[in-house]
Amino acid sequence: MNFLETLTGAWRRNNSLLCVGLDPDLEKIPDHLRSLKSPLFEFNRAIIDLTSDLVCAYKPQTAFYAAIGLERDLEQTIAYIHDQHRGIPVILDAKRGDIGSTAGLYAQEVFDRYKADAVTVNPYLGRDALDPFLDRRDKGVIILCRTSNPGASDIQDLEVKGEKLYRVVARKAAQEWNRNGNVLLVVGATYPRELGEIRALVGNMTFLVPGIGAQGGDLEKAVINGKTQDGTGMIINSSRGIIYAGGGKDFARAAREAALRLKDEINRYR
Amino acid sequence: MNFLETLTGAWRRNNSLLCVGLDPDLEKIPDHLRSLKSPLFEFNRAIIDLTSDLVCAYKPQTAFYAAIGLERDLEQTIAYIHDQHRGIPVILDAKRGDIGSTAGLYAQEVFDRYKADAVTVNPYLGRDALDPFLDRRDKGVIILCRTSNPGASDIQDLEVKGEKLYRVVARKAAQEWNRNGNVLLVVGATYPRELGEIRALVGNMTFLVPGIGAQGGDLEKAVINGKTQDGTGMIINSSRGIIYAGGGKDFARAAREAALRLKDEINRYR
Repeated sequence: MNFLETLTGAWRRNNSLLCVGLDPDLEKIPDHLRSLKSPLFEFNRAIIDLTSDLVCAYKPQTAFYAAIGLERDLEQTIAYIHDQHRGIPVILDAKRGDIGSTAGLYAQEVFDRYKADAVTVNPYLGRDALDPFLDRRDKGVIILCRTSNPGASDIQDLEVKGEKLYRVVARKAAQEWNRNGNVLLVVGATYPRELGEIRALVGNMTFLVPGIGAQGGDLEKAVINGKTQDGTGMIINSSRGIIYAGGGKDFARAAREAALRLKDEINRYR
Repeated sequence: MNFLETLTGAWRRNNSLLCVGLDPDLEKIPDHLRSLKSPLFEFNRAIIDLTSDLVCAYKPQTAFYAAIGLERDLEQTIAYIHDQHRGIPVILDAKRGDIGSTAGLYAQEVFDRYKADAVTVNPYLGRDALDPFLDRRDKGVIILCRTSNPGASDIQDLEVKGEKLYRVVARKAAQEWNRNGNVLLVVGATYPRELGEIRALVGNMTFLVPGIGAQGGDLEKAVINGKTQDGTGMIINSSRGIIYAGGGKDFARAAREAALRLKDEINRYR
C-alpha cells in the first residue's frame, strides 16, 4: 500500500482526521522518563499505545530529536509504530530542501534510514530538488504551501502576476509535481480563508494542517474550508495540546483524553 | 570573534576565497577508510590537515552524514577543525527552515550541538522562522537566495511586481533581516549574471557561492561579478572537485593539489 492508501485506511478505520505530533522536549516530559536510556522514545511509546485507535497519522518533528542528538529515539519511535500499530502512517516533519544530488541523500535519510511513510519538503529550490522525493511513488511528499507561522506572509503572500505565491506553489504542486499522485500540501489552520482558496484550486489533494491549539488556529473554520466533499482530505496535526495535556505518571492517559476530544470536535465539523 | 571576523581573518591569512565542501560519500571514499570506526571523519581529517592553509572555510553538508546515521562523524569533524585548525570557520550546510518554535531547536542543533560557525537557511517561511538564527549574533546566517540547481528558476525567478523573487529575498535579507550584521546569501556560480545583479543590490554582503566544478559554473564570470571592491565578499565552495580529486592512499594529497589550483585560479580573477 502506498502512503495515501494507508492514510485513507486509517481515516476510515479510526474515523479520525487527527494527527498527533510527536515533538518530545526533554525539559517538558515527566521526570520519571528523563533518566531512561531512550527518554523521547519511551515518552512517545506511551502516547502511541494510548492514541493509536484515535489518529490517522503520527508526525514526529526531526528538530526535537536532532537538537539533542537523539536520532536513535526517532528511529525507535517510527519502528515501533510500524511494528506495533501497523496501518498508522508516519510523517517525518523534516522540511528538507536541497539541490538534486543532495536531495537524493535526504530522501535516503527519510525513507530508508528512518523508514517514514511521508515527509515535509520546501519548494523554494524548485523541481529537481523535489524529484528524488517525488520519485518514491509509495511515499507521501508534503510540500510547504501556506505555513501556519506569523511570518508566512513575508514570502508566501508576495504577488506573482496578481496572484499570491502560495497559490502558485499550490498549482505547480497539483499540475506539475504530482505526476505520481503522491503530493500533499502543508496549509496552516491559522489561515482558514487560504485553506478554502487552496482547496478550490487543487481539487481533492490532501492537506497537512498544523496550527490548531497552541498556534491559535480556528478549528471549525479550518475543517469547513479545508475538507473535501467526502469529509476527508485533511491531516490535522496537534502536538503540544495532546502530548502535554497532563503531566506526571498519567501523562499518556491525559494525552488520550485530549486526542479523543479533539478527534470528536473535528468530526463535528466534517 | 564573530563569524564574519573569523572569515575575514581566514581570507587574509590564507589569501583564499576557497571553501572545501566536506561531503564524504561512503561509496566514494578510499577502500582503506571504509572499515574504520569513523570513516567519514577520518576521510575529512586527512583532507582538512592538507588544505587548512588554502581555504577560508569548510562546509560539511548534513545530508551526507544523516543519510547513513553518522552524525557522530559530523560532530567529530567540526570539533577537529575548531581544535586543530583554529581560525577556519565551519559552515553547516543544513538548509533549515521551520516555524519559530521549531526553528529555535534547529538553531540549537546547528550552533550548540554541532558548534558550527554559520548555517544555511531557507527563507520560504519568513522572518519568524529566521529569527532564532539571526539572534545568534556571533554566528553567520546564510540565506538561500538564488541557488545553483537547474530548478532554481521554478520559484526563485517568479516575477513579483516586475522583479524576480530572488531579488526580493536579497533585498529583504539586506534591509529587514540583517539587523545584527550576520546575514549572508547563497548565490550559485551557475548564474553569474544574477550574481552581479545581487551584488549591485546588497552592497558588501558576503555570498556563499556553490556550483563551480561538477555543477558547471563559470568561475571567471562568477568571481568578476560576485566579488566586492576589495576582492573579497565570496566564499566559493567546491566539494567533489576537491575531495575526490584522487583516490587510493594519496587522496588527501590530490585534494591539496586541486585546492591549490582552484585557490590560485580564483585569485587570478579577484
